[in-house]
This record gives sequence, structure tokens and C-alpha cells, in this order.
Amino acid sequence: MTNSFNPSVRTLMGPGPSDVPPRILSALARPTIGHLDPEFVKMMDEVKGLLQYAFQTKNELTIPVSAPGSAGMECCFVNLVEAGDKVIVCQNGVFGGRMKENVERLGATAIMVEDEWGQAVDTSKVAQALKNNPDTKIVAFVHAETSTGASSDVKALCDLAHQHGCITIVDAVTSLGGSELKVDEWGIDAIYSGTQKCLSCVPGLSPVSFNDKAVEIVKNRKTKVTSWFLDLNLVMGYWGANAKRAYHHTAPVNALYALHESLVILKNEGLENSWKRHKHNHLALRAGLEAMGLEFVVTENDRLPQLNAVTIPEGVDEAVVRARLLNEYNLEIGAGLGSLAGKVWRIGLMGHSSRGENILLCLSALEAILSDMGANINVGAAIPAVQKALNQS
Amino acid sequence: MTNSFNPSVRTLMGPGPSDVPPRILSALARPTIGHLDPEFVKMMDEVKGLLQYAFQTKNELTIPVSAPGSAGMECCFVNLVEAGDKVIVCQNGVFGGRMKENVERLGATAIMVEDEWGQAVDTSKVAQALKNNPDTKIVAFVHAETSTGASSDVKALCDLAHQHGCITIVDAVTSLGGSELKVDEWGIDAIYSGTQKCLSCVPGLSPVSFNDKAVEIVKNRKTKVTSWFLDLNLVMGYWGANAKRAYHHTAPVNALYALHESLVILKNEGLENSWKRHKHNHLALRAGLEAMGLEFVVTENDRLPQLNAVTIPEGVDEAVVRARLLNEYNLEIGAGLGSLAGKVWRIGLMGHSSRGENILLCLSALEAILSDMGANINVGAAIPAVQKALNQS
Repeated sequence: MTNSFNPSVRTLMGPGPSDVPPRILSALARPTIGHLDPEFVKMMDEVKGLLQYAFQTKNELTIPVSAPGSAGMECCFVNLVEAGDKVIVCQNGVFGGRMKENVERLGATAIMVEDEWGQAVDTSKVAQALKNNPDTKIVAFVHAETSTGASSDVKALCDLAHQHGCITIVDAVTSLGGSELKVDEWGIDAIYSGTQKCLSCVPGLSPVSFNDKAVEIVKNRKTKVTSWFLDLNLVMGYWGANAKRAYHHTAPVNALYALHESLVILKNEGLENSWKRHKHNHLALRAGLEAMGLEFVVTENDRLPQLNAVTIPEGVDEAVVRARLLNEYNLEIGAGLGSLAGKVWRIGLMGHSSRGENILLCLSALEAILSDMGANINVGAAIPAVQKALNQS
Repeated sequence: MTNSFNPSVRTLMGPGPSDVPPRILSALARPTIGHLDPEFVKMMDEVKGLLQYAFQTKNELTIPVSAPGSAGMECCFVNLVEAGDKVIVCQNGVFGGRMKENVERLGATAIMVEDEWGQAVDTSKVAQALKNNPDTKIVAFVHAETSTGASSDVKALCDLAHQHGCITIVDAVTSLGGSELKVDEWGIDAIYSGTQKCLSCVPGLSPVSFNDKAVEIVKNRKTKVTSWFLDLNLVMGYWGANAKRAYHHTAPVNALYALHESLVILKNEGLENSWKRHKHNHLALRAGLEAMGLEFVVTENDRLPQLNAVTIPEGVDEAVVRARLLNEYNLEIGAGLGSLAGKVWRIGLMGHSSRGENILLCLSALEAILSDMGANINVGAAIPAVQKALNQS
């Protein structure tokens, strides 16, 4: 006999999913209607418009892919890359490596530009790679590396790529809604994101946006897109401007209700206000963490406000701390990934999780458990430092 | 200013999504937790066990793909097919054509075995195709054609495929939970389904199951799976039996709560009871439709209980009828697809939609609108015929 599942109520301060506010959960649970229902089609149009706002773009092809961020990444690569193409992939964390996998599985060549994990992508290395490989078609990089908390200079990288006649694919899974991102102004050609980070929606959808140049490439491919499910030539028949929507696949109806609601919330707050809130709360968390004696992995200039990777006090078993935070305080923070596994914690302040009460809970719970375990931290310093930082406008 | 979206409350009697019961919508809206949370991992194990029950299989690789049924189809093909392979694809409706697309986009050859839309797959044609193509690797076919309502003989087709050393890929999107389906007993090698049909869960997930023979093929491929997102060699690191779950992608946490709940409901009802309920209600709907004067597309022996394709009375604009059902009675029924577009309606009795009250609403609403439009139907005959059929055990 299996019972219904009733999860504990957690506070989510890992690398995503972030806390989903009750308003979005309520939207998620509204009655399911058909994926071709005129009411649903109207809502799809609103989702497109709201996503254009969130991405700061006029791109007509701005839609949520009906699957998680990894599928959004794959949607960009599978539509734009053909066998034999050359793609410069910048790697400064886990997700650049995943881009490489995408490129190579399509029979294309990935030219890797590697930086230390925790550093921003080095534009001079990319410039060199472009000089060395004049037949490059695409430059792909991560705006906000979720595995390290480093932010890269999207505009500079796009300018560089365009100077060499390349288009860009940008991973904005962790940046969308949480820190400055301007698709049109920065000249991004194709971009993908996720719903479970700074939009504070449930995981499972991946917003993407393609500009006209990218759409032309998709329309003029020599070969069919290997994925039928992700082929944008077909997907646009369902999501396109055409009044008559052609059935492609059954859209995840309720998940789209939730995305719609999360975007309405973002619109009401205002994108720039959301960016400011993420920054403000990051500075407060940072003040507390540094007062406690923890150090950031990423240098100040490249640091993302929504994903804070910090070092672990010497001699502390980081997994034990995370387990105790979860078991004793229902608080989730993230472990390190890849080469940072076991070496850092990743503390997320994304979307609805970016709130003063979450900062206080996180720091007081960390202080309680680390001091209980005899770790070398400054007890009593974090909370006043947070308040002082929050007082600053 | 965009407002929150509040859909009308519809009765869903199309080809899916079906009515999602409040119990599943409530599960969907439970608080989001992390995709690596120990509580979530435990729930994932329960989902696997419950899916094994629904599929009637002991296959260890029995999991929901984190995307709609089309992605489940693609998951089967992309993992099992390599460039140069030969695949026999049986087409007797829309979805066989989609299988063909999947095969060809992978650089493999699709040998088509075609039957009239509305008929079952003809096993003798498949036998001939196997004789003509002794180097065939896979036989792929649809168990329950959602576009026509025809059911094919899975066991006979699997036996035939195995006699020729082939494995099988079976589309069970519309059959799972609604009509007899026995993965192990029938010898199905790989199968995919959807959540929004006879499980009455929200759309967006695709349960799949692979037996050991199929898993061996995936493990021993000559080339990497072209899709990173759907590569089961990687997905199994997250969903596998291993206690330490490796992060692959962020699972659609809340959608999985809903799937879990829908499978608990199925288990409590009992799989065979669910099959019987679908059959019983189908016979009642059929009695009403035939009393009214509408005819079934599919011959009685091959007819699915959960998807009823019926002809449209002469001179009636079928789209107007569907629009009026939706606008006046909040009732959705399905249009014809492909070669049956404009010629049939598809009336679904799937999962929670397979209830006496839905049958009465559908027939009385059809009678009201068709008689109002002056169509040539028998007025007053349908409702008593339904009651009589429901009285029979």
C-alpha cells in the first residue's frame, strides 16, 4: 500500500529550485483545460509577451520549451548546429561541459576555451580562439554559471563573436529575472533559461529566445533537426503568431499556468526592481557570511547576486552540515559540483527565496550547526552584519 | 497590465488531456522541494514501483521522462536506433508517421507498413516486411492509435518481431491504465506513454519502460546518443537503483507529485478494475451514440474503449459543433487529425473522464446542439440507451 506523498515544507536556498510562492502553486493547481482551447491559446500569447519583457527582447520566437533547462540548451544546439560545424564553447564550470557534449553529439566540433572554475570567461582567450578558427559558426557560453556563481560579460562576448561573423548561444538559466540581462541590447542571438531559479516557478520548463538571424539559420538548415520534439520549425506551428495553431505536442498545461503567474509577478515587481532586490539581499548575505568568516569563491566583480559559492571551514564535513540544515531546520543549501564538489557550498538567493527572512534563517542555522560542531567561525557576528547591510539602500 | 490566468472549468472528453481530479491537482500544488532531497528520492522510488505495476513489468528501467509523450517516443528511438539501422514502422494513423520522422532524423531507414486509418495493424503485412528485410533491427508500432481509436494486437506483433530477431518499440500513450496492457507477458522491449490520458494526470511527463534486452542495446551503442537530455545511460544515474543519485537535470518536481498521486489512485482502484470501468463506460457511450445515429470509425473488434472516433451527421459543420459545446457547455471533444480532419469527432473516456455523468453530459449536449442545428439525428433515444447499458454489469 503506497500512500499519497506529502513533502516537508522546506526553505530552498540551493542552486534551484527556489522557493515557489503559494500564489504560483495555486496557479499551477487551476483546472486543466485543453492545449488547443482558445482560452489556453490566449494565455500562451500572454506568456510569450511576458517572456519578451523578462528577456528584454522583441524576438518573435520567444517561448517556453516544454521540458527542463537541459532541454532548452539542447533546443538551441540541435536547431542551430549541423554536423561538421565548428563551435567555440567557453567552459568555466559544469555547464560549459554540457554544451560541449551537445555539440559533439551532433557531429560538430567543439573548440574549448577554458577558464578556472569560479572565474568569468576570459574574452581575450575567446578572441584568440576566433582568430585561430576563422571558420567558426557559433560562440557558446554561460552568462551565470550555476556551479560557481560567476558572471561573464555577455555584451563583450557577443560583440566579439559578431566581429568574426559568428552567432552566439547564451545560457541564462540562473540569470533570467535575477540579474541584468538584455537580449536585444547585448546582441544575443539564441538564449535559454529555466523556470526554477529567479522566476521561482516550478521546474520543468525552459524559456528560449531566438533572434531573426538565428531563426534564418534554423529555417535554412541543410539537414533536418535530429530531434522531432525540439525542431523549432515544427514547434513554431503551435506557438507561432499564426491564428490557427497546429498540434505538435501536448503542452504541459498546468506548468504553463504557473509560468504565466510567475511572469505576472515579475512584471508587477518590475524587472529592474527585481535585479535590485537580488543585489541588495546578496550584499546582506555576503555581509553575514564574511562576518562569520566564510569566503567567496568568485572575485567581487564577477560575483552573481543569486548564487553564492562559499568555502567551507577547515575540518568540517560539508555533507553533514547540509544534512543537519535539512533535518533540523528544513533548510536546503547546495553542494559543490564537479571540481568544486566537497569544497564549497552554494547558497541561492533566487526569486522568492531572495528575502530577508531567508537570509536570517540561513545564517542563524549555519551558525547554530557550525558552532555546535566546533567549527572555527565568528559566533554572533553574522546577524548584526546582515541587519546593517539591509538598512543600507 | 497582464492579469493572473483563471481558466474556465471544462469537462475534457477529447483525446487528452482528460479531466484531472482535484486530488491530483492538490498533489501538484504541494510545496516544491529539491530534486535531490532524500524525501524526493524516496518518492521517485515509489513512482518507479507504481509505474511497474501500471505497465505490468518487472523492468528496472521504468521511469517517467521529464517531458511530454512526444519526448518519450523520442527517448525510445534516440536510445535504440543508430544511423544505418533498419526499422519497420507500422502506420495506421498520425503517430506511426511521427515514428517515421524519428527514425529518419537519426539517419536510419524506416520500412513503412501501412494500413488504412481506423484499422488495426495487419500482422501479415508486418510478417512480409520482416521476410523482405531480414536485416531489420526494430519493429515499431502504436498499441492504441489516438488519432483513430484503433487498437492493435501487441502480443502477436511482438512474437513476430522476436521470431525475426528484432526488438519492439510500442506507443502506449493512450492505452496505459485504460485498456489491457501487459509489458512482460506480451514481450514488449521498449514502451512509452503519457500522463494526460488514462492516468488523468497533468500533461508533461512520459513514462517509459525498457527490458534488459533493450537496456543492453543502449549500453552497447557504437555511437553516443545524439540527445544528451534523453540519453538513458545518463538518466539512469539519476533514476537508477544506486543509492547515490547523480544530478543529471532538474526533475519537474511538482509534476512528479501529481504522477505519484495518479498512480496511487490507479493502484487503489486496481488495474483490472480500471480496464473494466473504461470498457463498461465505453459500451454505454456507444449505446447512446448509436441510438442517436452516429457511427464508429473503427470496427468493433479493434475499438479502443477510451477513444471513440465517430462520424459527423451529413451537412453539419463539425467545428461549429465543437465550438458550441465548448462555449455553451464547457465541454471539449476532439477534432479529427490528419486524413480524418473534418470527418470525425474523437470522444475520449479516459481516466477520470470515464464516468457516467460525463457520458450523459456529452450525449445530451450533442443532442441539444445537433437538434438545434437541424441535423438528422434520433432525438430522445440516446439517454435511455445509456442508462440501459450502464445497468448491465
